Amino acid sequence: MRFNRTVVLAALAGAFVILLSSSSAALADARNVVLIIADDQGRDLGVYGNPVLRTPNLDRLAARGTLFTSAFATVSSCSPSRSVIYTGLYSHSNGMYGLAHDVHNQHLLPSVRTLPQYLKAAGYRTGLVGKKHILPESQLPFDEELAPERPGNRDVAFMADEARKFISRNAGKPFLLIVGYSDPHRAEENFGNTRAWPRVARATYDPAKVIVPAHLPDLPEVRRDLAQYYESVSRLDSGIGLLLDALRDTKHDGDTLVIYLSDNGRAFPGAKTTLYDEGIHLPLIISSPAQTKRGVRNDAMVSWVDITPTILDWAGVSLSSGQQLAGRTMLPILEQPDPRGWDRVFASHGFHEIQQYYPMRALRTREYEYIANLASPLEFPIAGDIASSPSWQAIAARPSVGLGARTLQAFLHRPAEELYDLRKDPAEVRNLAADPAHREVLERMRAEMAKFRSETHDPWLPGQAAVFGHEEEH
Amino acid sequence: MRFNRTVVLAALAGAFVILLSSSSAALADARNVVLIIADDQGRDLGVYGNPVLRTPNLDRLAARGTLFTSAFATVSSCSPSRSVIYTGLYSHSNGMYGLAHDVHNQHLLPSVRTLPQYLKAAGYRTGLVGKKHILPESQLPFDEELAPERPGNRDVAFMADEARKFISRNAGKPFLLIVGYSDPHRAEENFGNTRAWPRVARATYDPAKVIVPAHLPDLPEVRRDLAQYYESVSRLDSGIGLLLDALRDTKHDGDTLVIYLSDNGRAFPGAKTTLYDEGIHLPLIISSPAQTKRGVRNDAMVSWVDITPTILDWAGVSLSSGQQLAGRTMLPILEQPDPRGWDRVFASHGFHEIQQYYPMRALRTREYEYIANLASPLEFPIAGDIASSPSWQAIAARPSVGLGARTLQAFLHRPAEELYDLRKDPAEVRNLAADPAHREVLERMRAEMAKFRSETHDPWLPGQAAVFGHEEEH
Repeated sequence: MRFNRTVVLAALAGAFVILLSSSSAALADARNVVLIIADDQGRDLGVYGNPVLRTPNLDRLAARGTLFTSAFATVSSCSPSRSVIYTGLYSHSNGMYGLAHDVHNQHLLPSVRTLPQYLKAAGYRTGLVGKKHILPESQLPFDEELAPERPGNRDVAFMADEARKFISRNAGKPFLLIVGYSDPHRAEENFGNTRAWPRVARATYDPAKVIVPAHLPDLPEVRRDLAQYYESVSRLDSGIGLLLDALRDTKHDGDTLVIYLSDNGRAFPGAKTTLYDEGIHLPLIISSPAQTKRGVRNDAMVSWVDITPTILDWAGVSLSSGQQLAGRTMLPILEQPDPRGWDRVFASHGFHEIQQYYPMRALRTREYEYIANLASPLEFPIAGDIASSPSWQAIAARPSVGLGARTLQAFLHRPAEELYDLRKDPAEVRNLAADPAHREVLERMRAEMAKFRSETHDPWLPGQAAVFGHEEEH
Repeated sequence: MRFNRTVVLAALAGAFVILLSSSSAALADARNVVLIIADDQGRDLGVYGNPVLRTPNLDRLAARGTLFTSAFATVSSCSPSRSVIYTGLYSHSNGMYGLAHDVHNQHLLPSVRTLPQYLKAAGYRTGLVGKKHILPESQLPFDEELAPERPGNRDVAFMADEARKFISRNAGKPFLLIVGYSDPHRAEENFGNTRAWPRVARATYDPAKVIVPAHLPDLPEVRRDLAQYYESVSRLDSGIGLLLDALRDTKHDGDTLVIYLSDNGRAFPGAKTTLYDEGIHLPLIISSPAQTKRGVRNDAMVSWVDITPTILDWAGVSLSSGQQLAGRTMLPILEQPDPRGWDRVFASHGFHEIQQYYPMRALRTREYEYIANLASPLEFPIAGDIASSPSWQAIAARPSVGLGARTLQAFLHRPAEELYDLRKDPAEVRNLAADPAHREVLERMRAEMAKFRSETHDPWLPGQAAVFGHEEEH
């Protein structure tokens, strides 16, 4: 299959993209992409050091590619985070301020372009298997949408079958395939572990043996909940194994960039919906057929705004003048364990559910995390799925046990600014924002944050939204 | 022109509406609708008792129709209020939680249907002249959109011309014409009064003579600002005069229901974006060719959820089973000065600009207003156009003058509940929510509010949003 640039350019007829040589354009004729998005998964994988959880397929993917140890979502909420992955823009810039589904009803801004738009315009066949969770549909023009999510869908073998069919059907053109799993999201009961699923070995875990992270108290209910979460992660891993088999069987191992990541942290209090480390510090594996070094552990601080630029670089798609994304391509650093100039990430949260307004902005370096809570007088809202979880029920019934290292009171009632020294206080419980010894750090991070918010046109920054609007629409 | 029901029914082919006899179906063959929406206008009209402001055309419309003295928006923000007018549903039920334009980006829920959808399906030609300010476009399928709003568009004669052309072009079918004025919205300078506009006599006002409402301090800057607002109201009135001329000239006086109202209160602090009386207590005139009594003053408490049911009743459109609107038709009470059973209205605010989250719910009876401030720990946000106004600048520079009867402190920092006795305290400054003598009133209104929120599926009421969503999308 040849990726004929002249044909593509001709097909663009006034469109916005032009094709340029990418850094590795010489490698392959087809430059396919498989982007795998796990749902609410923390860095809970064997290859990230969990000695209990069995994830052989993802461990193998890391062995043939690059494992990022300092990869971050920019927001810990499903639709906003997926919108960042799909657009290369922070959610406060792309309009996806909260969840898309049901009454929450948030949408990308009409001017924002997405991966399926970019790649479709560049001649790709675009497919989605599973979960999308972004609106509006018109800005997500996948050629095919397969195995759309539905209640209780945990059938990862079926998803792999659908992916295989998509790949087989679309021989002759490069493809972008996004696979959005429902695992390991919570379900009404036990993370969907209500039965054995076809062609997937059931992996169960002993609650006594799970690792209780620092943001949770060591309670029996929490351990049992984590054991169910682990089972869901193992099912996800099995599904990814079948998906990678499909890629191998269709002879696309050698021409496909594979990216695996999670949208946000595990759905336990103290992780998902927070900008604390366990909310946004997530798994990321990238495996490129162009890699000469394999099994790389990469400590670059990258974030989900870098995903779209990486895929566009791989596909050889350049933005037209005037278009600018917030992130940058990771392809040049794939084989560098500790590249220079990748030492901070920003994060930005608006709301999760529509009634859960809690705008936050964060700057994370290797040493510090600075968080600005823009509506700090409000109580921190608890996502519905977490509120109904056995873990939260147990914590709420015994408020004195707190959230592991953090008190419940501190979790629910936050000051306008937080500053944590991550080397001495990785659980982020000693707020140094008012500490005179950290005044200089605080002021430096405040200044960087102000610059970031201005450059990314943060609507929560006074002066960013037009007062009389375009067309005087107020 | 005959409105052939058989033809319409045949055209519906599986659609949701069926046509039934309405209360006045026998009157006319064509049952046209002109819905006029003013932008940010309070009850500032001659016919409402303002002795200074000249609004001869609207006064004449009231003389031939019904003037409502107790008419209310359910939310004091442009897009949410228009969404209520267009759908017959509260904004917390229809998804339009805040502004639509620019970065604010709020949309109707996909299941919600609008006036142009209902009437188009019933065989109407549908037209919009001027301002829309609701999303998404796909749920607002006007056959024609004319004189779309643009910066500085105050050319009301042009809007009347476009309306005239729409009406003339569409002879042979009943029509729905919505006319959304930009007057008397604020503009960058003096409410758009930067020059004389074609075919409209300029009406200027002496700041010494304007009426300063109770929610504003009597400052020279406020008076000058009000004088400019008055000029904009008079231009609106002149434009409506030209529009009504067009209706008369095209021989549609006798078959057209005319409704005039405003989306929300005047763009001054203490009115627009609040649920206080001056934010939501607004002008409403309905003139029906079926009226036998004219010049009626009607004291029924009605609200903007009643607009769509009234228009559907006029047009003979019934909802399919399963569909339910929050309001009810006003046609049966048009000629009744004080009909029974119209003694309370509800209101509901989410946010104005996206960063101006301040959910409130209100219940207004003839005697009391009860307001629940759901995010009361936050400071009340000031809309951008108000913040940049000469009035607000003058008030902020002299905070001790307050907002007329109300202190600035009380305006910006509100308790979780407010209760006002409107007979003794029409300016709503003495909060009785903690007054033991009003305990019973408070509890009764709380109970009514709880019922209302439950019945209207208020997402801000715990338990209303699905925890695991449809399709597990969280």
